[in-house]
Amino acid sequence: MRERFLRACARETTDCTPVWFMRQAGRYMAEYRLLRRSHSILEICKTPRLAAEVTQQPIEALDVDAAIVFADLLLPIEVMGLSVEFVSGVGPRIGSPVRSPADVRRLETRRSADLGYVGESIALARKNLGDRVPVLGFVGAPFTVASYMVEGGGSRHYAKTKSLMWSEPAAWRELMERVVEVLVPFAASQVRGGAAAIQVFDSWVGALAPSDYRRFALPYSRDLIGRIRATGVPVIHFGTGNGAFLEVFAQAGGEVIGLDWRVEIGRAWQRVGDSRALQGNLDPIALLAPTEELRRKVHAVLDGAAGRPGHIFNLGHGIIPETPVEQVRAAVRMVREYRPKRLA
Amino acid sequence: MRERFLRACARETTDCTPVWFMRQAGRYMAEYRLLRRSHSILEICKTPRLAAEVTQQPIEALDVDAAIVFADLLLPIEVMGLSVEFVSGVGPRIGSPVRSPADVRRLETRRSADLGYVGESIALARKNLGDRVPVLGFVGAPFTVASYMVEGGGSRHYAKTKSLMWSEPAAWRELMERVVEVLVPFAASQVRGGAAAIQVFDSWVGALAPSDYRRFALPYSRDLIGRIRATGVPVIHFGTGNGAFLEVFAQAGGEVIGLDWRVEIGRAWQRVGDSRALQGNLDPIALLAPTEELRRKVHAVLDGAAGRPGHIFNLGHGIIPETPVEQVRAAVRMVREYRPKRLA
Repeated sequence: MRERFLRACARETTDCTPVWFMRQAGRYMAEYRLLRRSHSILEICKTPRLAAEVTQQPIEALDVDAAIVFADLLLPIEVMGLSVEFVSGVGPRIGSPVRSPADVRRLETRRSADLGYVGESIALARKNLGDRVPVLGFVGAPFTVASYMVEGGGSRHYAKTKSLMWSEPAAWRELMERVVEVLVPFAASQVRGGAAAIQVFDSWVGALAPSDYRRFALPYSRDLIGRIRATGVPVIHFGTGNGAFLEVFAQAGGEVIGLDWRVEIGRAWQRVGDSRALQGNLDPIALLAPTEELRRKVHAVLDGAAGRPGHIFNLGHGIIPETPVEQVRAAVRMVREYRPKRLA
Repeated sequence: MRERFLRACARETTDCTPVWFMRQAGRYMAEYRLLRRSHSILEICKTPRLAAEVTQQPIEALDVDAAIVFADLLLPIEVMGLSVEFVSGVGPRIGSPVRSPADVRRLETRRSADLGYVGESIALARKNLGDRVPVLGFVGAPFTVASYMVEGGGSRHYAKTKSLMWSEPAAWRELMERVVEVLVPFAASQVRGGAAAIQVFDSWVGALAPSDYRRFALPYSRDLIGRIRATGVPVIHFGTGNGAFLEVFAQAGGEVIGLDWRVEIGRAWQRVGDSRALQGNLDPIALLAPTEELRRKVHAVLDGAAGRPGHIFNLGHGIIPETPVEQVRAAVRMVREYRPKRLA
């Protein structure tokens, strides 16, 4: 529900905790798999009619409180001049990755208008959904986007990214600045399309030591988040693997901090402070657990938030393809039916 | 140096911070690669003469303060009745993984004497090294060993492990107890061979939410560590990805807590308390950085420990194969030459 979600972002009281799921539109859903038989991921992303359809699927199927536009955090890489393909069973593969200062200088920063299709998808989904639920937009955080550009895909050790960062700090800075230059207008176009909030995904930030996060990632995330915030919508700032340095991560901004599942939510609130809302943080694999165990875990997250205003229920990372849809639906019902324990 | 290492485990003052590296014997060293041309990993592990040779290689090459026996945390899986092979470029592959209560009941627990070759390797390395440096033994933590047994190898989501844990809690308990029954005498045989300390590697513990760690892993790690401790040697309790719940992890025990690189060491000490020594926690990829950046990072770790007794310098995870040996040697020198800043 639109108001439920937006009030929680602003840490205002709600009738019950709003709930949505990262990757709630995706391979675990039959409707999505059917569409994927005739269209590639990039085709769906770039065809607003299809992207809006996928964006809306979980609203019908799950009764969640927010839709998130179907898109990919690698889309901006294309308009910067690199090729992106999604290889089945492997993940994204990026052509001619960025490895040198010369590679950085070649990156284009003025073509973000070419990403307008994402804003159009949002506008279309908004039109179809009316005021039922807000549609969220998203971008990758500069570190996560840059690490894909340098590694050429997923990575285990991020050795190439860190090597560039440490051996060529000026080129790294320029890389991050160029990424931000593309992400800001991209996020703004999503807001113009009607995005009610923007989530910034720093999916790979957990590869960094906190001192490196401070020097090589935080300034650019802060710049990005501040400039998105200036468009007037709240920002959800999500990371994984960063629970050991959550305080530092939170310094980059975000009305809402998105938590992965290794963090106890009550403790997280102590660490990031009362001025933030929190989103999360059920282990995504818990959706594969027996119903009673799932209920126990959903309740544990809600108990951790202790009925405090400013909690948005979500997973600690995206839904995995093996997840049964029925379990996701059950989790939504559990959140709806939960009543906070009376505090003594 | 033997005394330097052991005094740090006991939080006594040392002339300088002792230093060794996880996976200090391995593919990044030419001597090791040469031996691997004619022997498989398992052959080296099971031939004390070869295992001792590999164990000693970094002592000559690097001047570190401890040797760690060349072995593998999957060796106990073999004596429990599963096959293990190391597939080049893929990692370990385990035959007929454990997926049901019946699979758990089939696991053997009385053949740990067959792992005696590891104790023999330690004895031989000790004999060759004399009192120059201590030789450390190691075992996997029950969760990490069990997750390999269930997944059949490495894993991204640990979905099979978590599913078994949550759907068949009695079978999970029995699995963990059986693993501990094998690991305790295995560790004891390493101590009899002359291991000066045992490191318990909980490499995959970061897959767990803290509440699941408490229920499904901590009791068995605590049992294991307590029983190893009873053999009279200190235990180093190491985990990765667990920085968000370090307090809970430390409850399982260990004179020394081994940290991954996402944790600030000074803060870690506040969280685990003054009664523990700490080991760690340079980002292993920092060994690929330019020398000045490496020095900065080595100093940052040492500054974080603030010259407090009870710090053992190490990485936050193992050395990766691409690491230049010269950089590892340089890191040892940097630790040796470091003098703590005078506190005001």
